[in-house]
Amino acid sequence: MPVPDTPLLAADAIIELTDRPGRPIVLIQRANPPHGWALPGGFVDPGERVERAAMREAHEETGLDITLLALLGLYSDPDRDPRGHTVTAVYVAAAQGTPRAMDDACALDVFPPDGPPSPLAFDHALVLADYRAYRASGTLAPLRL
Amino acid sequence: MPVPDTPLLAADAIIELTDRPGRPIVLIQRANPPHGWALPGGFVDPGERVERAAMREAHEETGLDITLLALLGLYSDPDRDPRGHTVTAVYVAAAQGTPRAMDDACALDVFPPDGPPSPLAFDHALVLADYRAYRASGTLAPLRL
Repeated sequence: MPVPDTPLLAADAIIELTDRPGRPIVLIQRANPPHGWALPGGFVDPGERVERAAMREAHEETGLDITLLALLGLYSDPDRDPRGHTVTAVYVAAAQGTPRAMDDACALDVFPPDGPPSPLAFDHALVLADYRAYRASGTLAPLRL
Repeated sequence: MPVPDTPLLAADAIIELTDRPGRPIVLIQRANPPHGWALPGGFVDPGERVERAAMREAHEETGLDITLLALLGLYSDPDRDPRGHTVTAVYVAAAQGTPRAMDDACALDVFPPDGPPSPLAFDHALVLADYRAYRASGTLAPLRL
């Protein structure tokens, strides 16, 4: 079989710091284009489960060991990544301790979910809106056509 | 940026025939390797949303117009596809009418969820076990590490 051409696959994590009041979340400032604030995440490696990719990227970029709680949704708008069509699986996760910016992150900070920084890269403003609904009522990201 | 190497991405649909007693599901017999019974589905095209890929593949293989109901889970075991690492998004969907085997499907039939045919291709036995839990209690596929 010739190798099919499909979108690239990534994984991102919304990391709740569960040892802090209000369970704030961790965002990184991207060292590489597209610049802006973003969820920790990155491309899935061949041979790697998507869940493991989310955990690995979170550790590489924040130093945190995260526990995955739920798959919030699969984001696949062809225009969501200016570098080309990349589908990302976004997980809600929990961690404790102090995150530190590493690897692809040139800075990092902790924010309340309703007060994220600007500008956000990719479609992460949409992702965080879905996350706020999840946090309020437990609903996962809607399917989008 | 050099193009990263990531797993291939596919989408599959568990199609409930909601105009029949007991809401049976549609499975196809694959015309191409790996042979066996399988959920209708296939590779996501670049530029296509994953949800649209599930709807397109279902239509191409069964002739049905499906309505997506939920994302059951993302299946990414590196060994789930003998052709190479392929991650698939599995949706629960509804349709009415008579499915007909087309395209990659050399045959097609309708089964109760607890009585699927054998052998099932890929990890579709696991997917259908998750689906039976979803149908019984509404729980989505567990995250797997």
